[in-house]
Amino acid sequence: MVASAVPAKSAGNRTLSQQFDAVRSYSNRLCEPLEVEDYGIQPMPDASPPKWHLAHTTWFFETFLLKPYLPGYAPLNARYEYLFNSYYNGVGAQFDRLRRGTLSRPTVAEVRHYRTHVDAAMLELLQSSADLELAVEVRSRTVLGLHHEQQHQELLLTDLKYAFGHNPLYPVYMPAAGVDLEPGAQASGEQPLCFDGGIYPLGRATDGCRAEHFDGFCFDNEGPRHEVLLRPYALAPRLVSNSDFLDFIDDGGYRRPELWLANAWTRVRQECWQSPLYWREVDGAWHEYRLSGLAPLLPDAPVLHLSYYEADAYARWARARLPTEAEWEVAAGTSPLLEQAGAWQWTQSSYGPYPGYQPLPGTLGEYNGKFMSEQLVLRGGSRFSPDGHIRNSYRNFFYPPDRWQLTGLRLAYDRPA
Amino acid sequence: MVASAVPAKSAGNRTLSQQFDAVRSYSNRLCEPLEVEDYGIQPMPDASPPKWHLAHTTWFFETFLLKPYLPGYAPLNARYEYLFNSYYNGVGAQFDRLRRGTLSRPTVAEVRHYRTHVDAAMLELLQSSADLELAVEVRSRTVLGLHHEQQHQELLLTDLKYAFGHNPLYPVYMPAAGVDLEPGAQASGEQPLCFDGGIYPLGRATDGCRAEHFDGFCFDNEGPRHEVLLRPYALAPRLVSNSDFLDFIDDGGYRRPELWLANAWTRVRQECWQSPLYWREVDGAWHEYRLSGLAPLLPDAPVLHLSYYEADAYARWARARLPTEAEWEVAAGTSPLLEQAGAWQWTQSSYGPYPGYQPLPGTLGEYNGKFMSEQLVLRGGSRFSPDGHIRNSYRNFFYPPDRWQLTGLRLAYDRPA
Amino acid sequence: MVASAVPAKSAGNRTLSQQFDAVRSYSNRLCEPLEVEDYGIQPMPDASPPKWHLAHTTWFFETFLLKPYLPGYAPLNARYEYLFNSYYNGVGAQFDRLRRGTLSRPTVAEVRHYRTHVDAAMLELLQSSADLELAVEVRSRTVLGLHHEQQHQELLLTDLKYAFGHNPLYPVYMPAAGVDLEPGAQASGEQPLCFDGGIYPLGRATDGCRAEHFDGFCFDNEGPRHEVLLRPYALAPRLVSNSDFLDFIDDGGYRRPELWLANAWTRVRQECWQSPLYWREVDGAWHEYRLSGLAPLLPDAPVLHLSYYEADAYARWARARLPTEAEWEVAAGTSPLLEQAGAWQWTQSSYGPYPGYQPLPGTLGEYNGKFMSEQLVLRGGSRFSPDGHIRNSYRNFFYPPDRWQLTGLRLAYDRPA
Amino acid sequence: MVASAVPAKSAGNRTLSQQFDAVRSYSNRLCEPLEVEDYGIQPMPDASPPKWHLAHTTWFFETFLLKPYLPGYAPLNARYEYLFNSYYNGVGAQFDRLRRGTLSRPTVAEVRHYRTHVDAAMLELLQSSADLELAVEVRSRTVLGLHHEQQHQELLLTDLKYAFGHNPLYPVYMPAAGVDLEPGAQASGEQPLCFDGGIYPLGRATDGCRAEHFDGFCFDNEGPRHEVLLRPYALAPRLVSNSDFLDFIDDGGYRRPELWLANAWTRVRQECWQSPLYWREVDGAWHEYRLSGLAPLLPDAPVLHLSYYEADAYARWARARLPTEAEWEVAAGTSPLLEQAGAWQWTQSSYGPYPGYQPLPGTLGEYNGKFMSEQLVLRGGSRFSPDGHIRNSYRNFFYPPDRWQLTGLRLAYDRPA
Repeated sequence: MVASAVPAKSAGNRTLSQQFDAVRSYSNRLCEPLEVEDYGIQPMPDASPPKWHLAHTTWFFETFLLKPYLPGYAPLNARYEYLFNSYYNGVGAQFDRLRRGTLSRPTVAEVRHYRTHVDAAMLELLQSSADLELAVEVRSRTVLGLHHEQQHQELLLTDLKYAFGHNPLYPVYMPAAGVDLEPGAQASGEQPLCFDGGIYPLGRATDGCRAEHFDGFCFDNEGPRHEVLLRPYALAPRLVSNSDFLDFIDDGGYRRPELWLANAWTRVRQECWQSPLYWREVDGAWHEYRLSGLAPLLPDAPVLHLSYYEADAYARWARARLPTEAEWEVAAGTSPLLEQAGAWQWTQSSYGPYPGYQPLPGTLGEYNGKFMSEQLVLRGGSRFSPDGHIRNSYRNFFYPPDRWQLTGLRLAYDRPA
Repeated sequence: MVASAVPAKSAGNRTLSQQFDAVRSYSNRLCEPLEVEDYGIQPMPDASPPKWHLAHTTWFFETFLLKPYLPGYAPLNARYEYLFNSYYNGVGAQFDRLRRGTLSRPTVAEVRHYRTHVDAAMLELLQSSADLELAVEVRSRTVLGLHHEQQHQELLLTDLKYAFGHNPLYPVYMPAAGVDLEPGAQASGEQPLCFDGGIYPLGRATDGCRAEHFDGFCFDNEGPRHEVLLRPYALAPRLVSNSDFLDFIDDGGYRRPELWLANAWTRVRQECWQSPLYWREVDGAWHEYRLSGLAPLLPDAPVLHLSYYEADAYARWARARLPTEAEWEVAAGTSPLLEQAGAWQWTQSSYGPYPGYQPLPGTLGEYNGKFMSEQLVLRGGSRFSPDGHIRNSYRNFFYPPDRWQLTGLRLAYDRPA
Repeated sequence: MVASAVPAKSAGNRTLSQQFDAVRSYSNRLCEPLEVEDYGIQPMPDASPPKWHLAHTTWFFETFLLKPYLPGYAPLNARYEYLFNSYYNGVGAQFDRLRRGTLSRPTVAEVRHYRTHVDAAMLELLQSSADLELAVEVRSRTVLGLHHEQQHQELLLTDLKYAFGHNPLYPVYMPAAGVDLEPGAQASGEQPLCFDGGIYPLGRATDGCRAEHFDGFCFDNEGPRHEVLLRPYALAPRLVSNSDFLDFIDDGGYRRPELWLANAWTRVRQECWQSPLYWREVDGAWHEYRLSGLAPLLPDAPVLHLSYYEADAYARWARARLPTEAEWEVAAGTSPLLEQAGAWQWTQSSYGPYPGYQPLPGTLGEYNGKFMSEQLVLRGGSRFSPDGHIRNSYRNFFYPPDRWQLTGLRLAYDRPA
Repeated sequence: MVASAVPAKSAGNRTLSQQFDAVRSYSNRLCEPLEVEDYGIQPMPDASPPKWHLAHTTWFFETFLLKPYLPGYAPLNARYEYLFNSYYNGVGAQFDRLRRGTLSRPTVAEVRHYRTHVDAAMLELLQSSADLELAVEVRSRTVLGLHHEQQHQELLLTDLKYAFGHNPLYPVYMPAAGVDLEPGAQASGEQPLCFDGGIYPLGRATDGCRAEHFDGFCFDNEGPRHEVLLRPYALAPRLVSNSDFLDFIDDGGYRRPELWLANAWTRVRQECWQSPLYWREVDGAWHEYRLSGLAPLLPDAPVLHLSYYEADAYARWARARLPTEAEWEVAAGTSPLLEQAGAWQWTQSSYGPYPGYQPLPGTLGEYNGKFMSEQLVLRGGSRFSPDGHIRNSYRNFFYPPDRWQLTGLRLAYDRPA
């Protein structure tokens, strides 16, 4: 988590207002190393400008809290409802997401002013909710909004990394000196972690996502809690490393169709994939762009920025497989190291609803449920994930070709029953 | 199954040579109503020309049986290896699948000659295999090739239907008089079929796909047999009908984003979906194109040619859900009616490997395994499915937006534990 | 002209009915070498199926003559008005031109029947027009329709060549034995043809396109006749040959951006152009697909199937330039050899209206005028051009990247004043 | 010209160093109203970021003057050669022009530093060139570089206008109060300007583009001077106004295919054109975005931001035509008002080489010549054109669908001979 680089006080015992301030401030702090120019660029459709992240997370509070619940609230700018709506059809039309990088206005200063404006109103709202039932709704929506903002804190970093990693000047976000933002060498344990077959509980109780308290929150897609049946399996004790992946490349991995899914192979050829996203050959030696700049590849660090396609092909080459999300979660329940690896780990599980899943009522129900098709679950959390977003039950999800998140893999194996 | 329209003698007690002849002949019989012009067209990328189906299924036998196993076999035309390879990278390069409809040559007569040439050699091979071990391999590859051809028999009809259904003249493949090729009104039972939770076996034992006997065959993806844990559930006793689906449309189904997955809604707007694929409004009344021609919609027939997106949206609108493939298979084990509905039924299950799945060795391993991403499983079989391809364990798979197969849906419901 | 291969009696002294029959029959004769399968394919957006050419030319007579002028005429099929309308917005909507290759129906036999049906009605119309003014209109529209059909006769061959030339089997349309359809070795004259500067007349008197007589007809875009001012210039006595063009290739022509227009260079890289459209390297030797099959390149034949981009790049490499259309026409006025070269010759002149140009009134005005943007004029006529379509004033036009016509080039040079 | 808004001292009697300083400073002055955020955006492929214009014009001097002619010159950053190369293949590879808006670095401050660095070196070079022949080359390249920069000054404004005009906040670049940057009401003269037929000279003597003096410069494409033959014609005394164009719209102009070229009509439907680029309907009244903001349409101002397609359709509707570039230039020779209209005027002339045209030698020859295909000539100059870029012989050129320049039209008419 980046928080290790930019220290934040412990979350415990905070009031919600204090928590609100902590999360909102952290977004600003993440942007401190940026130049004004960095706030506006969208280097590819999925990578939104930092400015947009700052504004959209603010829009969330304005739309779902201030407008419905704070009497007399005056929006700073009526057009922002349209400009910073991401995908909520229930709210109304949305500015074309492919064109977010074309909006030089509002400026960074104006977006900061928007944040200040909304923050002030939010603090007023949080301190004034007299009606008890309303107060519960206000508090739980606020908690959701804060976790939403934390998700965008991670995206802000991955999106920025895409922009910097594709700029021939390879700008530095934060020098490697001192704390490195990105995962380094892993411990060298090689003994597989073995698990028995049987029936296990999976997921969280469904009320976490309506919680009034910041800590202990979970998203609706993490529940309901239910039982799954697992067969005996083993997990590798560490993530596949850069050095491991280099063996795959050197063995012709990117040139052997038999290792790839059909869609994967099509993509490999269309986009001429020959290495992970940020690997660059400089004077015959592999380098990697990280937020600390372009530097020689760290052989013992986990390989990052793999698509599912690449993770799956590597696993096939290694005569192993990817774990299911259930295998991962059950293992993490007893082996906390799984979530300390510093990278999201592709699973073979499609992102879908757990049995009995119900999205939140109303427009907020668009948060998670409508994306439950064609994506795969990732588990574990990355070094860019904020405090609290690394937990056993957390389900991240991306499309099979996506490479711009901090995504790696952990191998899984079948065991005899 | 079309076989009800074009009778075929029972499969039991046939020698493999007889079975070979029966399946091969049936492909030809399916084409009898065609004009020469119909054999060559590819009306969209996924819908191959009938001529291509006839040639590719022949190529399969030539490539995987005659070339490796029949001493002295002389290919009819060396270029066919390239022209009629679908997607087997292990065999070599493939003619661009988007351009299959541009090949006026070989002609239909030449393709028939190719079939005759290969058929004769195959019969020779089947009768001459002296070496026992080789004979086993030859027989099991032949069985696979026949089931492969049967799959293409179904595709030949769906692809032809796409061409005819998009031709403003709406040609008739086979008049409705007598036997109708496509599913008609369903029985009116309304009582849900209820199932208990518990651990159930799923799938077939893994050796079916290497069987030397045509009957009892299964594809590698239908196994290995393994256990799954189900919660109590219910299934609708019949498929959603045209009349049901009309209610969805009349209730604004295609205009209400809250009913649709995000990717689905994007597609609905991009392609202006307003009804199932072959519905046409004629003088203010809904009609449907079927292989018997354009005719008024049959209200009690199952709704066909839905994408997964539409099936999922309908289920959400109906406050139900799609079944998982395990729920479907377990139910079919006790309720054989499930597979008599006449249409493939979308499940919510992503198409992936069962635990312990191993593709066939060598190039034939490209048959099923490499497509295990981004598709969804369909169960049940359709009226176009050949004899023997309607079985409990059969896993069909298509992409969520695909609409050109005979695809409908059966609703599922949670039951209290 | 193909007519040399498929002899036709002289056009002189024919009645219009006889002329009608001659042109219509010739279309059928051109198709005699085809298999039924060949009639339906559209190998790229611009190359329509032979069947479509046969039907559309028939549609022209039905739409512009029979429906308005033959009392009681009953169309064979009401949908044909839509199916075979090419681009006449004044007539109504048009079937998607990109999907012409997906129409297996009407069949070839049905299209022949359509031709017979329309031909009979046309002969009735031509023999019955009592009203004098109407008769003039009927006759001049018929003449236009015949020249329209002749244009499609040439397109039928070029479109077929595209299909055959991109089929890995390289089918033969007509064996080279006897008359070769395509241009062979040119006479070896090397002396440039020199012309003085001055004012010259260009184009035809404007009434040719409304003529009642087949001979002497011209299209509206060939006039009005007007004066142009030319500077002294010279033209090469023969077209650039395959051998010449090979020198360009061997000199790195396709790899040197300084030889190419900006748009041309983009195209060269996007489509990996490395030779003219139908050149194929077989066992290290250049071959060329012609309608007589794939055969070794004829060094002395004119280079064919060049885009304007390639013609322009070659001219730059040769330190020459392309002629203007006025230079070409003036030269052809005194050097009839120019139009005997067997290939269309790119000029540097954009296709636009001559001063005072007026399109035909009404829907027929869509024939030529609306295409007067972004195309370039070609002059000379090719071996595929029908009798009478090779004339000094004839203006052919295509887009700069187009390569599928029989297009070559003749170099031009400035001369001192 | 914008210069009227941002006064600049007269160009006469300046030394080249002074002129260099004046042009370079003016680019900076044009950017004064910008926020830092505005410098980086590329709202569509053709509209480059202001920062890129500032850097690329600097790159021109560095590449074509400092590197070859200033001994010991040290580039500020070696990567800039690649980053800011627009299209000069002779210099080397170019950063993808579609991705110019993704480069947040170098920052605006760094680009300004780049400008300062190059400016200082340029002044040194201009003052030190001892060798006479070299001095001539240095001076004429410098003059070319300054006119190049002036072209980018105009583009900077049109590109910025595109960004602002497509931002829902409609930012103001410069308030309308005081001098309006964009053309206002035209004088109301209605009498056509009539011209006799005959032979006229066209274009400039060819040595202007190699001139050592800033004043009197012309681009290579403005010559060589040559004769043209014109027929009697007339030109409208003023440009088509917004009010005129509204009549076209109200008469169904955008819905009547018979008014449009074929390619134009395709575009109208694909992009749903219903009005000029920056017209917006607000509460039922037409408004127009100008750099002074969104305001009610000025009926008497010239209509702006038309594509050639729209200009051509309007002319057809008005039973007139567009002038040729020769007609325009000859008329401007006697009617200086033609170039004071404030908007570029589409002609019907394709952009091609004048007879005898030779591009500059070497890599600088890529400046104009390689774009001579598929574009049309515009004449007249706009209110955004810098001082000196409004002259009789100036040939601007854009593609027929382009709308983002200040493009309008002046009608032309044939006169009886």
